[in-house]
This record gives sequence, C-alpha cells and structure tokens, in this order.
Amino acid sequence: MEMHEIINTIYQEVKPLASEGKVADYIPQLSTISPDKLAISINNVDGSCYEVGDSNTPFSTQSISKVFGYTLAFKALGAEIWNRLGKEPSGNSFNSLVQLEYEKGIPRNPFINAGAIVISDIILSNYSNPQQALLNFVKGITKESSIDYNTDVATSEKSTGYRNIALAYLMKSFKNIQNSVEDVLDFYFLQCSLEMSARSLSKSFLYLANHGIVPSTNEEILTISQSKRISALMLTCGLYNESGDFAYRVGMPAKSGVGGGIVAIIPKKLSICVWSPPLNSFGNSLAGIEALERFTTYTGDSIF
Amino acid sequence: MEMHEIINTIYQEVKPLASEGKVADYIPQLSTISPDKLAISINNVDGSCYEVGDSNTPFSTQSISKVFGYTLAFKALGAEIWNRLGKEPSGNSFNSLVQLEYEKGIPRNPFINAGAIVISDIILSNYSNPQQALLNFVKGITKESSIDYNTDVATSEKSTGYRNIALAYLMKSFKNIQNSVEDVLDFYFLQCSLEMSARSLSKSFLYLANHGIVPSTNEEILTISQSKRISALMLTCGLYNESGDFAYRVGMPAKSGVGGGIVAIIPKKLSICVWSPPLNSFGNSLAGIEALERFTTYTGDSIF
Amino acid sequence: MEMHEIINTIYQEVKPLASEGKVADYIPQLSTISPDKLAISINNVDGSCYEVGDSNTPFSTQSISKVFGYTLAFKALGAEIWNRLGKEPSGNSFNSLVQLEYEKGIPRNPFINAGAIVISDIILSNYSNPQQALLNFVKGITKESSIDYNTDVATSEKSTGYRNIALAYLMKSFKNIQNSVEDVLDFYFLQCSLEMSARSLSKSFLYLANHGIVPSTNEEILTISQSKRISALMLTCGLYNESGDFAYRVGMPAKSGVGGGIVAIIPKKLSICVWSPPLNSFGNSLAGIEALERFTTYTGDSIF
Amino acid sequence: MEMHEIINTIYQEVKPLASEGKVADYIPQLSTISPDKLAISINNVDGSCYEVGDSNTPFSTQSISKVFGYTLAFKALGAEIWNRLGKEPSGNSFNSLVQLEYEKGIPRNPFINAGAIVISDIILSNYSNPQQALLNFVKGITKESSIDYNTDVATSEKSTGYRNIALAYLMKSFKNIQNSVEDVLDFYFLQCSLEMSARSLSKSFLYLANHGIVPSTNEEILTISQSKRISALMLTCGLYNESGDFAYRVGMPAKSGVGGGIVAIIPKKLSICVWSPPLNSFGNSLAGIEALERFTTYTGDSIF
Repeated sequence: MEMHEIINTIYQEVKPLASEGKVADYIPQLSTISPDKLAISINNVDGSCYEVGDSNTPFSTQSISKVFGYTLAFKALGAEIWNRLGKEPSGNSFNSLVQLEYEKGIPRNPFINAGAIVISDIILSNYSNPQQALLNFVKGITKESSIDYNTDVATSEKSTGYRNIALAYLMKSFKNIQNSVEDVLDFYFLQCSLEMSARSLSKSFLYLANHGIVPSTNEEILTISQSKRISALMLTCGLYNESGDFAYRVGMPAKSGVGGGIVAIIPKKLSICVWSPPLNSFGNSLAGIEALERFTTYTGDSIF
Repeated sequence: MEMHEIINTIYQEVKPLASEGKVADYIPQLSTISPDKLAISINNVDGSCYEVGDSNTPFSTQSISKVFGYTLAFKALGAEIWNRLGKEPSGNSFNSLVQLEYEKGIPRNPFINAGAIVISDIILSNYSNPQQALLNFVKGITKESSIDYNTDVATSEKSTGYRNIALAYLMKSFKNIQNSVEDVLDFYFLQCSLEMSARSLSKSFLYLANHGIVPSTNEEILTISQSKRISALMLTCGLYNESGDFAYRVGMPAKSGVGGGIVAIIPKKLSICVWSPPLNSFGNSLAGIEALERFTTYTGDSIF
Repeated sequence: MEMHEIINTIYQEVKPLASEGKVADYIPQLSTISPDKLAISINNVDGSCYEVGDSNTPFSTQSISKVFGYTLAFKALGAEIWNRLGKEPSGNSFNSLVQLEYEKGIPRNPFINAGAIVISDIILSNYSNPQQALLNFVKGITKESSIDYNTDVATSEKSTGYRNIALAYLMKSFKNIQNSVEDVLDFYFLQCSLEMSARSLSKSFLYLANHGIVPSTNEEILTISQSKRISALMLTCGLYNESGDFAYRVGMPAKSGVGGGIVAIIPKKLSICVWSPPLNSFGNSLAGIEALERFTTYTGDSIF
Repeated sequence: MEMHEIINTIYQEVKPLASEGKVADYIPQLSTISPDKLAISINNVDGSCYEVGDSNTPFSTQSISKVFGYTLAFKALGAEIWNRLGKEPSGNSFNSLVQLEYEKGIPRNPFINAGAIVISDIILSNYSNPQQALLNFVKGITKESSIDYNTDVATSEKSTGYRNIALAYLMKSFKNIQNSVEDVLDFYFLQCSLEMSARSLSKSFLYLANHGIVPSTNEEILTISQSKRISALMLTCGLYNESGDFAYRVGMPAKSGVGGGIVAIIPKKLSICVWSPPLNSFGNSLAGIEALERFTTYTGDSIF
C-alpha cells in the first residue's frame, strides 16, 4: 500500500474504536470537544506530507507541549538540568506524589507532571519572557503565526489543579522549585493550554525526527546527540504509565496529551500526529494508540 | 575510524574505569572473578565480527539469560504470557516486593526478578525437560556445544537467595505461580548460572538483531513483530532501574547481568557484548555502560 | 444492672449482628464453624466469673496465641527482643510486606504476622522444646490440662500460608530470622492452631489483668512493669489495622484472632473473652467488637 | 516519696539529658529558645498542684494545640467528623503525603498534620470567628486571660510551610477541604502558634483528665464518652510515629509539640505537662519523655 492508502485505511479502522474511550472532563473546556474528531497527519523529513480527517483543527496540546518546554530548558541549561530531575520511567501514575516524597522532591523524568513543573521553573529562571519565548519557538519551527495559548483553558485548569499545586509545593519543600509556586504554575498551565492542529504538531516535531535540525530551514535546534536523547526519553516516558506497553506495541518515541493528541517520530524519516479525544484508562488517546500500532504494523517501520 | 579501531580505542579508554565499580560478592563464586577482565565482542548480521580482550572467557550470564527464558516462554505461550505479567518499567529496585504486593502478584515485566520467576514457572509448565530445552536453545543459536550451567553457582545462589524465595511465595499467594516454588526456583537459579563468553553472548543475540531469524542458519526463532517487541522490552526494562538512563545515554535495546555482562543490539545491524565484572550502584557493569555509550557516540549508530 | 444482667443483655443484642460478618474460609477447618456460635466469659481478678453462651466450646485461638508466644519470648530475652522488632502500630494490613521491606526486615510490632514469626524464631532459639513449653505455659496459667493444638489446622495453614512464608524469607534475607524458615513456620502455625474455649481464654489473660501475677496461684509470670507494657502493646497493636478504632470505641487492651475470639482486660479488675466467628473487613470478630463496646459503655469501665 | 519530692527528683535526673536532643530550628522564632528550659507542672483533678522549674514561662504549644482544635470541631460536628478523617495510627511520618494519597485524601487521625488541617477546615465552616473561638475556649478552661497567639511564629511558619501547603492541596484535590486552602492554613498556623506555660497547659487538660468536666467550674466541655475517646486517640496517635513506644514506656494518653512540650493525663486523677525544648529524632521532647517515663515508674500510676 502507498502511504495515503495506509492512513486512509487506518482512519476507517480506528474511527469506530473512539467510542470505547472517554473524553477528558475535569475542566469544561476539554469536555465539550466532539468525541468524533479524528485526524492523522504525517510529515516526512524530505518535505512530503499526508493527512486525513480533521488535521487542520486546533486542539489542546496539553502534555505534548512538555516536549517544547523541555527543549527550551535543555537549550538553556544543558546537562545541568539533570541535577533537578531524572530520566527514568516512574512506574507510577503521572501525578503521583508518593515517589516524589520518597525521592526527596526530584521528579523521575521531565514528562510526568512534577518533572514538567520543574522544567517550567527552569524556564522562568532562564528566559526573560517565558510565555513569548515558548510561543516564538513553536511558531518558528512550524512557520505558523496563528498558534496561540487558550487562556480560558489555562485559567480553568489553574482553578481546579489542586494536585499539581500540591506537587509544586512538595518540591518547593525540598528546595527543588526556585521561583514562586504561583508563577511557576501560571506558566505550566499556560504551556499546557497551547492549541495546535494535528498538521502543526506533526510539523513541529520534525526537528526531533531530523536529529535536531528543522528540515525546511536547516535551523539547528539541538545537536544530534541531544535530539536522540529526547527521543529516548519519549520512548521510555512519553505515554505516562503506558510507555512500556506503547514501546512494545508501537515502537516509536512519542508524546501524548489528555487533549487526545499523540505525536510520534521515526528518526531520519518522519513525524506523525494522531488526534482522537476519547482517552483510555491511562489518559492516552484510545484510537490514537490503535492508529499508531497499525501504522508501524502496516509500514513495517519502527525503531526496533 | 574503522570498527576494529573503534573497539580498541574504547577498550583502552574504559579499562581504567572498572576500578570505580564493585564485583558482585553475594555468593563466593561471583566474588572471585578478577575485576580486570574486559571484553568487547561484536557480531554483525552480515556475518563479520570484531572482538578485543577476554572475549573467549566464559562468565556467569546471570540476568542476561532472562532473555533466553523469555524467548522460550513466549514461543510456548504467545501473547497469553501477558495474563501473567506486564510490560512496564517498574520504577523500583529489581528485587522489590512493594510493587508486587500493590499489584497483586503480577510482576511489572519479564526482566525484573519476579517476572523472570513467573517466566520460569511458565517454562516448567510447557517444556517436559526445561533445563535441557534452555541449554539446547542456546547451543542451537550459537553452534557452541560447550555452553553449560554452573551448578555450583546455582546451588550457592539458591542457598542464600531468600529474597527471591520471598518473591516467589508472595506471587504464589496471589496464585501467579502454578508449580512448586522449589521447582520454579531450582530452574530460575539454574538459568541464571548459565556460563557464556562475550563472543557467544554476542553471537546468541543475533536472532534479536536480525528480526527473529538466526542469520547464519536462517532459522526463524521469532516473527519480526515478536522480535521487535523483545527489543522494546529490553530498551524500557533491560537494565533494571537504570534503563531510562541507559536508553538516554546509549540508545540500544540491551540486557545486563550481575556477572558484569551487557549485550545490546542495533536492529538489522549488529549485536554487541561487553564484559567487565565491577558493577555500579544499579547492579550494571560500570565499564560496560561506558563502553556502550562510547560505541554509539563513535559510530553515530543507535536506534534513535 | 448487675454483671450477669449486663452480659445477658449484650448477648441478646449482638447475636443478630453476627450475620453481617463472614467466617474465615481460607482453610477448610475454620470455614466449617457455625456462624451462630456466641460466647461471653468474664473472669475478675477477685476470682468471680460470669459467662453466657458457648463459653465452654474450644475454638481456634489463632492470633490471640501471639500474646502467649510474646510472653515466652519476653521472659527469655527481656528488653533485648526490641533489637529484633518494634512497638509501633503498623498502619498497614496485618500481613503486608511493604513496610517490612522499607524497614529492612524489622517488623513493626509482635502482633502483626511478621512480628509473631520473629517471636517464634526467638522461642525456637531459647526453649529446648518450644511446642511443649508453650502448651505447658497455657495449661499452667489456666489449670486446664485438656488444652491442645489442632494439628490439622496447623498443617492446613502451612500448606496454603504462602504469604507468611514470603514474610519469613523476606526477614531471613535481612538476617532477622536465625533458624530455618521451615522450623520457624512449623512452630508459628502450631501456635496459631491452639484451641481454647472463651472460658479458658478469659482465665488465661488474668495474669495480664493482674499486673503479671496469676491471681489464683500468686505465681509471678511477669513484673508489674512488663505486664503493663504488654497491655500497652495490645492497646496500640492488638486488633490489626483496627486497633485505633477499637481503642476509641472500646478502650481496653485486647487481642483478636481470625477464629472469631477477642480477649480484653481492664487492669487490676478483669479479663473478658467474646467469641463469635463471623469477621468484619479488618479480620476481627464483628459481634465481638460490638459486645465489648457495649460492655465498656454499660459498665462505665475502660482504661480511659 | 511524696509528689513534690518525685517531681524534684525527676527534674534533677532529666535536666542533663536535654543536651542529647536538638531544638526545632525550621523557623527562627523556635530556634532561639534556650535548650536549658525545663518545667514540670501537675494539676490534680482535686485542685492540688505541683510544679518545678520554668513552669510559668509561655512557650509555643505547636501540635499540642491540635487537641483544642479537635475538641472544638468535635463539639460542632460530633461523630460526623469521622466522615472526614480516621482514628488509626498512621505508621508514617507526621507530615507524609504517601498514605494520604493511597487513602484518597482522608487523613489517618486528627493529630497528624493532614488531620489537623482538616480539623481547621471544619472549624472554619462551623465557627463565625474561629480565631477568637479557639482563644476563648483556652482562656475559659484555664481562667488565664493573657494567653495569646504569637503571630510572628504563625507568619514565619506559613512562609516556609510548603509541605503543609502541599498536604492541604492534595486533600483539596480529593475534595476533603471545603474552604480556601489559604484560609485553612492561616488558621492552622495560628492555632499552632498559641503560647502557653507548662502550668497553663497542665491546667487546660484537666477537662480531659476529668471525663469532660472542668473540675474548678464544673463546666461540661464533653460527655464522659467523648472525653474517653479523645484520651484513646492521644494514646494511639499523640506522639507521632513514637506513639506506640510512648504507650509502652509511659502508659499515659498524651500530646506533644515541637516547641518541646508534652501534656499527659491519668483519667480521674491528674494532668501533667513537661517542657524541655530539645527534641529527639521523632520530633518529641527528649527529656520530656524521660521525665514522664520516670513519673509513671515512680508513682506506679499509669492507665495500664
């Protein structure tokens, strides 16, 4: 099959599966999304692209944006960021405080909530205008000037995000948050509220697929080594407590968000974003995982 | 640099590092190994090979043999084995009982001790002569007829392996061990006592590097999909609680043992074994990890 | 009300409650007991006694016998036993391994399973004939020569007691069991199989109610201080993870067993045993707790 | 010995022991207290009293004030408060989040921090002027009009009390805090800042020693049953993770604070307060525990 046939086939196959999942409903802004939305968008490093479904509809990136935040923090601090957090899968729920207490305020990795909050703290300490810096970064790598935060989502998450506040204060008690918790979480929730379409998200991850360099502009975002290492982190930690299973079934470095998006890459080859809002019990897009499993099965491509 | 230069360079560079580690000493048979032993052995799927140092000296494979056990169990039971254990990194020490109790006797993955004990139980239920079956399997894929268990090591581990006995009985209390604990552990300890050289180990993992097929004989051990999935498991769970760090620094599916060996693969390309007995605090070969990190850096090859 | 009226009233009131509980059924020997059995037996230190219901029917003392074991170990080793275990409530299920792993094989107190197994180990190291020593002790303080173990119960518990075996091996791995696990558990299960009637049990605890001295014979079993301290342990740890609630509702030092018995004392005054086989979710006699709460309410007597 | 001799003897014996402890230093206001302060103050329910040392010097009551807070909440809500928290010893550190997460935001008991924060929330919902209500309560039972909060201490604790903020938000995420976390903690820290002398504290606990009734005025604060139940809670949970050991060694219901005070009672008899700022590793007054152990040993009085 050719690629456009493959993604059309997958689109048809997984569309009915979405009904087995459940759209995130902890804030009103997320719960009103239609569960029937479905998009698959592929960008090859050679510039070609394929898409099907609602590829051009912006949605809440949520935890997917943690990859952008991590990239900014890593560019600013380099390997020093590992003094503040680890690189191991957590083996626990994405917002658990248990491990964080046993491990004295050092989050397991940058993609669980606690880790992303530390990353936000690092960005606040190293960028004069963090909100603009993140937005400029995403606009720069996608050449899409309309990308923006959804401040209603950010405000709503902040007003109910008690557990994230608890995580931040627990780390503050271990001296692993340097700025005020309020400022850190303001930025953290804003980052999560970033809205992008499957097309933009797929395009935005091309610098990771292409070993650190944006293919269309040749801009070097990261070194090869740094880029490979983010991929490794996504593989071991990108889908919360389902990361091992995803590596097993799909075999691509990826990052998911509770908005229903998953972006995955095959190094030196392509970036793919699937969007389907209903989530499975781990908080990952149910149809999204099914689609990506079919993708590596039908193409025979994965990193393994 | 050509490959033989690369491995000679690495050999020289990491040789002094071994002194920072500590040879396993919980049983006398392991503690008497010279900490100066060092071997690097590479087998390409195209049949070429490279080696340096003590590549032909057999040593205790220990947990590396869990990959062979897992392969046998998987061949016998297929995807049904996932009713008995998981595929997630544990986030805990390799012999912890904590998670096993919370998760009602279902081990996180086949490469922590509890998981390998369940695998042993599965093998006992599905092979009429498990000890011979495992030995025949390893001899078959390496064409080395002298490979054998070290029963002194097995006996000694059994006589002091109280925590493994505790793990087994805890799982038995959750009905996740079907045979007698004594029989299961006898096989488990015997499997760990398997002795192989770096050369044999490197050769033995070629079926995993080659998507399930032994390159020299074209024998299909596993399907492509099965083979890729073991690689994914090795990447996320192969180095105990240092797996995420290893994926980040090295970027190869691998399995380590407390005998000081680590075997890693690059799919469709090669299998590499490093052996250096002194261990770091996670129980992995200290110089072995350094060597493999240099290997992917110098060659520019990794799965990411 | 006079005492005989009080216990008759309580007997009538709690009899219907037993149906809300569930008789222990993990071994056949316990599951066949009639759930309608109910006994209340009181022994005052002045020699008077009151009883109602099935007071003379022997039943399986189970964990209640841990008090006798503890007494023997304490007589042999004195305060040195605190090198082997603690005196704090566990805050966890009676057979949990979690805390035991975090606290390196030192059980929280002598009345959770792990602690009683350590006590059994101490008895084995300090008495030449432990089984006889325990039996003689109980016969001596009750003057009832017919008390005996039920070896069917002991054998059956041993053959299914995988979790207790796991606890013992975990402690052995921390070097907190000195004898062979098999010998220790043989004695542990035998101790739990001791059969006594409510009348005998009530009588047997008089040395604790009477500050260490058997009232009928003036034999000193423990010093005043030692006796008070066992009472403190029973108050804080005697009813598993329901100890705090029992202290709150009832206010007497007590020990329960899954055979449905509970023995409680008021220092310098009396010992009381209630027996009703159906258990609540914590593994304590449901009607037994209700009866004892009514007892301290109706008499106005408790230690507080 | 007569009582005044006993307390003078104890005073001399324990004075040198204080140097083995460490004054709380997490806020400047507590760290400046002289470690040599020592007071013992006894109030009998019959009106007689004895004291030695710095009995009239006010100090920070800290967690001792949780007993007053609990009394107010219990008077307002009665047994309904048990929908919001438990009555079991926690088996964990006084400010741990681990158990709180596993048990879904329901604190183990009212005397660990999380429990006292829930109690503060209940008081806020049930008293129109909580700060005044608590102060009036303490002034009323002691007839000492000069008792007051130390707002410097409260402010300082609030500005560094990140872990308590984390506990509160974690419970808020489980919907077990009804008011704003800021308001709840303002009251919580203010309550902890209450300053009283050993003499006042000893006097203030007489309603608990006297089954709910203030002896000097006959005012009924609690029913007999309610009073006994607070005593039970103090016995099982009053000294953090050292409660079991304290019950074993001392045998009195008691409550301690990191200001170095411990108040204990013998029902129907007396209330005793010891004050010595240096703490042991559990956060309890080191010399205070020694003094109380001697007290029950020399007098032969305890609840057991």
